[in-house]
Amino acid sequence: MKKVAIIMGSDSDLKTLEGAFTQLKDLGVPFQARVLSAHRTPEETAQYAKSLQQSGFGVVIAAAGMAAHLAGAVAAQTILPVIGIPISSGSLQGVDALYSTVMMPPGVPVAAVGINASKNAALLAAQVLAVSDPDLADKLSKLKISMAESVAEKDAKLQSQIENL
Amino acid sequence: MKKVAIIMGSDSDLKTLEGAFTQLKDLGVPFQARVLSAHRTPEETAQYAKSLQQSGFGVVIAAAGMAAHLAGAVAAQTILPVIGIPISSGSLQGVDALYSTVMMPPGVPVAAVGINASKNAALLAAQVLAVSDPDLADKLSKLKISMAESVAEKDAKLQSQIENL
Amino acid sequence: MKKVAIIMGSDSDLKTLEGAFTQLKDLGVPFQARVLSAHRTPEETAQYAKSLQQSGFGVVIAAAGMAAHLAGAVAAQTILPVIGIPISSGSLQGVDALYSTVMMPPGVPVAAVGINASKNAALLAAQVLAVSDPDLADKLSKLKISMAESVAEKDAKLQSQIENL
Amino acid sequence: MKKVAIIMGSDSDLKTLEGAFTQLKDLGVPFQARVLSAHRTPEETAQYAKSLQQSGFGVVIAAAGMAAHLAGAVAAQTILPVIGIPISSGSLQGVDALYSTVMMPPGVPVAAVGINASKNAALLAAQVLAVSDPDLADKLSKLKISMAESVAEKDAKLQSQIENL
Amino acid sequence: MKKVAIIMGSDSDLKTLEGAFTQLKDLGVPFQARVLSAHRTPEETAQYAKSLQQSGFGVVIAAAGMAAHLAGAVAAQTILPVIGIPISSGSLQGVDALYSTVMMPPGVPVAAVGINASKNAALLAAQVLAVSDPDLADKLSKLKISMAESVAEKDAKLQSQIENL
Amino acid sequence: MKKVAIIMGSDSDLKTLEGAFTQLKDLGVPFQARVLSAHRTPEETAQYAKSLQQSGFGVVIAAAGMAAHLAGAVAAQTILPVIGIPISSGSLQGVDALYSTVMMPPGVPVAAVGINASKNAALLAAQVLAVSDPDLADKLSKLKISMAESVAEKDAKLQSQIENL
Amino acid sequence: MKKVAIIMGSDSDLKTLEGAFTQLKDLGVPFQARVLSAHRTPEETAQYAKSLQQSGFGVVIAAAGMAAHLAGAVAAQTILPVIGIPISSGSLQGVDALYSTVMMPPGVPVAAVGINASKNAALLAAQVLAVSDPDLADKLSKLKISMAESVAEKDAKLQSQIENL
Amino acid sequence: MKKVAIIMGSDSDLKTLEGAFTQLKDLGVPFQARVLSAHRTPEETAQYAKSLQQSGFGVVIAAAGMAAHLAGAVAAQTILPVIGIPISSGSLQGVDALYSTVMMPPGVPVAAVGINASKNAALLAAQVLAVSDPDLADKLSKLKISMAESVAEKDAKLQSQIENL
Repeated sequence: MKKVAIIMGSDSDLKTLEGAFTQLKDLGVPFQARVLSAHRTPEETAQYAKSLQQSGFGVVIAAAGMAAHLAGAVAAQTILPVIGIPISSGSLQGVDALYSTVMMPPGVPVAAVGINASKNAALLAAQVLAVSDPDLADKLSKLKISMAESVAEKDAKLQSQIENL
Repeated sequence: MKKVAIIMGSDSDLKTLEGAFTQLKDLGVPFQARVLSAHRTPEETAQYAKSLQQSGFGVVIAAAGMAAHLAGAVAAQTILPVIGIPISSGSLQGVDALYSTVMMPPGVPVAAVGINASKNAALLAAQVLAVSDPDLADKLSKLKISMAESVAEKDAKLQSQIENL
Repeated sequence: MKKVAIIMGSDSDLKTLEGAFTQLKDLGVPFQARVLSAHRTPEETAQYAKSLQQSGFGVVIAAAGMAAHLAGAVAAQTILPVIGIPISSGSLQGVDALYSTVMMPPGVPVAAVGINASKNAALLAAQVLAVSDPDLADKLSKLKISMAESVAEKDAKLQSQIENL
Repeated sequence: MKKVAIIMGSDSDLKTLEGAFTQLKDLGVPFQARVLSAHRTPEETAQYAKSLQQSGFGVVIAAAGMAAHLAGAVAAQTILPVIGIPISSGSLQGVDALYSTVMMPPGVPVAAVGINASKNAALLAAQVLAVSDPDLADKLSKLKISMAESVAEKDAKLQSQIENL
Repeated sequence: MKKVAIIMGSDSDLKTLEGAFTQLKDLGVPFQARVLSAHRTPEETAQYAKSLQQSGFGVVIAAAGMAAHLAGAVAAQTILPVIGIPISSGSLQGVDALYSTVMMPPGVPVAAVGINASKNAALLAAQVLAVSDPDLADKLSKLKISMAESVAEKDAKLQSQIENL
Repeated sequence: MKKVAIIMGSDSDLKTLEGAFTQLKDLGVPFQARVLSAHRTPEETAQYAKSLQQSGFGVVIAAAGMAAHLAGAVAAQTILPVIGIPISSGSLQGVDALYSTVMMPPGVPVAAVGINASKNAALLAAQVLAVSDPDLADKLSKLKISMAESVAEKDAKLQSQIENL
Repeated sequence: MKKVAIIMGSDSDLKTLEGAFTQLKDLGVPFQARVLSAHRTPEETAQYAKSLQQSGFGVVIAAAGMAAHLAGAVAAQTILPVIGIPISSGSLQGVDALYSTVMMPPGVPVAAVGINASKNAALLAAQVLAVSDPDLADKLSKLKISMAESVAEKDAKLQSQIENL
Repeated sequence: MKKVAIIMGSDSDLKTLEGAFTQLKDLGVPFQARVLSAHRTPEETAQYAKSLQQSGFGVVIAAAGMAAHLAGAVAAQTILPVIGIPISSGSLQGVDALYSTVMMPPGVPVAAVGINASKNAALLAAQVLAVSDPDLADKLSKLKISMAESVAEKDAKLQSQIENL
C-alpha cells in the first residue's frame, strides 16, 4: 500500500495532528510524519516534496497555521494529491490559515479540509488510496456504517434523557 | 481508467465548470456531468452518490453556491473522495459556499478547492486517479513542466515590456 | 395540537437545546427530540423528515454546527416549516453554521434564528402552531406581557442600584 | 385563509420583493404589502404590527437593509411569526442586514431567510399557513415535485450540451 | 445643565456601562439610567425617547448587544443626539451589534462609539453638552491634559523598566 | 449659531460629502469645508483642529477612507464632538475605514456614522447644535415629520402599484 | 545604489505594479522586474531570491493574489527586507492575499503594504534604501513636501467649488 | 549603527513588545522605547517622529491596538521606514488594528507585520539596517541557519515521539 506523508509546519501542531495519526493507524494505513517549514526550511521541504512520488507515497497531508504556505509549497513540487489542514492559531483563529490553504492559483490545487480537521484529513487520504485498494475501501465502508450506528446509539440514549428532563 | 463524476447544484454553475471539463478532456480523463440538487432532488442525489463506487467512478467533483450542501450530501453517501467547489453567487460572494463546503464534521471529509476553482478541482481529481495510473501521473508531470515554461515565457516578455515602459 | 420535531446533528448540541425543551414544556407544546445527522445518517434523516407531516408534526427545529446542512437536508424532504439553529462550535464560532443554515437556494427555505438561539427557535415554533391555535396564541401573548414586566422590574431595581453607586 | 402581511422599509426594496408577490399569487395566498419604516414611521409600524393578529393575518414578512430593525420592530409587537428578509444594500452587501435581522435577543424571535431571498420568504410564509390548511399544503407538495422535475429537465439538457462541448 | 439619558437593553449590560456612570460623575454631568428594551418593552422605550427633549435631557446613550436596535429605536423618536454603544455578547462578539448600531438609514443618525466603549460614550455625551457649556468644556480640556500627562508618566516609567530588562 | 467644520482626507471624497453640504444648507447651518490629510498634511490638520473651538465651530465632521485616521487625528486635538464618516474605497469596501474610525481608544471618542453616510453626519451635527438652539431643534422636528410623510406617500403609491402587478 | 527587485506571481498583476515602476523611476531608484511563481516555478523563485543579496539588490517587492505565498517564499530565502503587496483578485477581493502575506510565522517577516498598494511598496523600498543614502532621503523629503502642497492646492480649489455649490 | 525607535500606544502593549526587545538585544541592535499616543499625546508623537531621522535612528517600530493610528501618525512625520505592529485587543481581536495599520493611503506607507508579531517587527527592522551593515547581515544569515537547525531538531525529535505513539 502506498504511504501517507504528514508534514507539519511546527511541532506545536503535533497535538492537533494526533487525530490523523490515530485514524490512519486504525485503518492500517502506513504513514511518515515530518516537521518541515515552508519558511524556515524551504529547501528541505522542497526536496522532501519532490521525492515523495518516487518513495512510495501516494498522498500528502500538510498542516500549518497563520499564513499557511506549507500545503501550497508541497503542491508546487509534486503531482501527488496534497491535503491541507488549516491550523487555528493566533488572533485570526484559523481564517488566515484557511484562506492561505484553499485559495490556490490555477494549476496547483490543494485539497483543503476544515480548520484543525486532522481526522478528516486522514480519512480523505485513506479515501484517495482506497480508489485503487478494495480492502481499504471495504474498511472505509465499515467505518461509515459504524459512524451511523454510533449516531443511532446517541439517538436512543437521548430518548431516555428527554424523559428524565 | 476510473471516471470522474461532476455534479452541479444548478445549471447556472455550468459556465464556472467549463474549466473542469476542458482540463479533464485535455488529460484524457473520462467524466460524467450531472445537474443534481441536494435540496430539490435529494433522493436522486443520494441514489447517484451511492451508486458511484460500483459504476466505475473513482472520484467526485461537486459544485454549489450559497449554503452549499451538495458536496457534503454526496460525501454522506460514498467513500469515494469528494472534491467540493464553492461557487460564488449572491451577496456573500462565495464565503458562504466556502464555509458550507469545507467545515465538514468529523468522519465525512470534503476536499475543498478555492472559490470557483473548477480547473483545480479537475486537476485534483486527476491527481487522485493518477495515484494508481502511471500514464496519467506522467501527463500531470508534463503539465507541471509546461506551466513552468509558460511562466518563464511571461517573464521573458516582461523584460521587453519593462524596457518600453 | 400538532407536535414539534427537534433534530440535533450531534448529542454535543444537547446542552444548547435545553432552552428549547424548557420553553416548549412551559408552553405545553408537545415535542419529540432526535439525534440525526445529515452526514452520518443521511437516510434516517431523510426518512424521518419525510414522515413528519403524516405523523402529526407541524413544525421542525434543526440544530447543527460548522457546515450545518441539517436544517436544509430536512427542508429538502418536507413542506413543514423548518427552523434552523446555527450552533457555535470550532474556530469560526458559528458564522459557518449561520451561513450554512440561512443562505438556502430558492425553493427550499429555512427559517434561521440566531446562533445558539434555542429558546427563540422554540418560541418561533410555538408561534407557527399558534396561527391556528387560539389557546397557544393566548399563552404567547401572556408570555410577551410577562417579559415586559420582567424588564420593568429590572428597570426599577436599577434605580436603587444607581443611587448606591 | 389567513393573509400574509409584507412590510418593506423603503420602496427601493420593491424590486427585490417582487419574487415574494409572484410566489404568493401563484399559490393563491392573499397578502397585503406596505411601506413602513421602523425608523421613519415607528408609530405606524407599531400600530400596524399590533393590529395584524386581529385583522386576519397569519404571518408577516419584513424586508429591510443595513441596520435592518424592521423585522425585530414588528416582532416586538405581535406574536405572529415574523419572517425577516435581509436586503443587500450599501458597502456591507447585506451582512449588516443579516446580522441585524437574525441575531434577535431571547424572547423575540425573527425567522430569517437568506439575503434578498424574497421567494423563499413567501414559501416559508405559505408553509406556516399550510400547517392548518391542507389545500395549501397540497399545493406546496406539488410545487416541490415540480421543482424536482425542473432540475431533472436541466440535467437531461446538460447531457446534450456536454456532448457538444 | 441638560441631563444625559442612559438606556440599556438588558441589565446584563450594567457592568459594561459602569465606565460611563463613573465618567459622567467625575465630570459632574447629571444623568438618568434606565433598562428599556426595544423588543420587549417597545412602547415604554418609545414613550421615554419621545419625552426626553421636554424633560431636560440633552443627549442619549443607548447600549445593546446582538441585533442591537435600541439606539435606532430611540433615534426614531427624538431629535436629540443618540450615542450608540454596541455591546459584545454571544458568538459574533459585537460585530453584529456594531453593524446594527452604526449602519442607520438616511435621516435617522446614530453616533456609534467602539464596541463596549462606555467611557467614550460618556465623554462624547459631555462633549455634546459642552458645546453650549463653557464650564464643562473647561473640564474636558483639563481632562485631555491629564490624559496626556498620564501617558508621559507611563513613558517615564518605561525608561526605567527598559533599563532593567 | 456655531458652525460645522467638514474635513475630508482627499478631494475624491467630495462627491460622497455633497449629501452633507445639501443637508446643512437646507437646515441653514453654516459650515466650512476643508481638504486636510492626517497623513499628508498632519501639521495643518492638527492646527486646524486645535483652532476650531476658538473659531466659532461647535462640531466637526471628518471623512476618510481605508486606514481612516482623520477623525481620530482631529479628536486628538479638540474637545468638540467629532463625527467620523468612514468612506468606502478600495478592496475592503469601507470595513477598514469603519473599524479605523469607530474603534477609538478610551479618552478620545469619535462619533461614527455608517459607511458613506454623509447626510446622517450632517443631521447628527445639526442635532448636536440643536441641543442649545431651539430654532434648529424645531427645524429638525419638522424634518422628522416630513420624512414620515414621505414614507406614507410611498406606502400609498405602493397600494396602486400592487393592484397593477 | 542598491537595486530593488520586483517579483510578481503572474503577468496579470502587471497593471497593478505600474504604480511601483513609475514611483521608482521618478525617484531614480534602479529596479529589476520578474514574473516568478511560488507555485509554478518554485525553484526559479528560490534561486532568484537566494541570489539577490549578492547581486546588488537591497530590497525586494513581491506581489501576489489569493493564497499569496510569493512574498513569504522569497523571505524564506533571503535576509533582505521583503515588501509584500497583496493583490485583489477573485471572490475574496484581496483579504485572502492580505492574510497570506502579513500573518507570517516568527522568524521570517514580510513587510505588508495595503491591498494593491504598489506605489506605497515602491516608496517603502526607497525609504529602506534611503536609510544609508542621503541623496535618496533628500528626494523622499521633497516628495513629502510636494504631497503636502498638492493637498493644499486641492483645499484651495475646494473653497471655490463650495462657493459655487 | 543606526538605532531603532520602538513606540507603543499604551504601556499595556509592553508585554507583547518584549519579543522585539529580546530580538534586537540578541542581534546587538541599539533601540529606544517610548510610550507615545497618537490620540492622547499627538504633539509629542509628532515631535518625536519628526526628530528621529536627525537623532541617529534608521527605522521605527510602532505598535498599537484597535483604531491603530500610531504607525500612520509616525509615518506622516518621517521618511524613515515605519514598521507597524497591529496589537490584538478588545472584541475585534486585532482585525481592526491590522486594517488601521496596513491600509495606508498612497504616499505614506507603513510596513505591517502580523498581529502581535513583535519578534518579526524587530527582525524586519534589523533587515532594514542590515542593507548597509554587512556585520548585521551576517548575524541575520546565521540566525536563519539556526532557525533551520531548530526545525531539523524538532523533526528528529518527532520521529521518536511517533514511534512511541
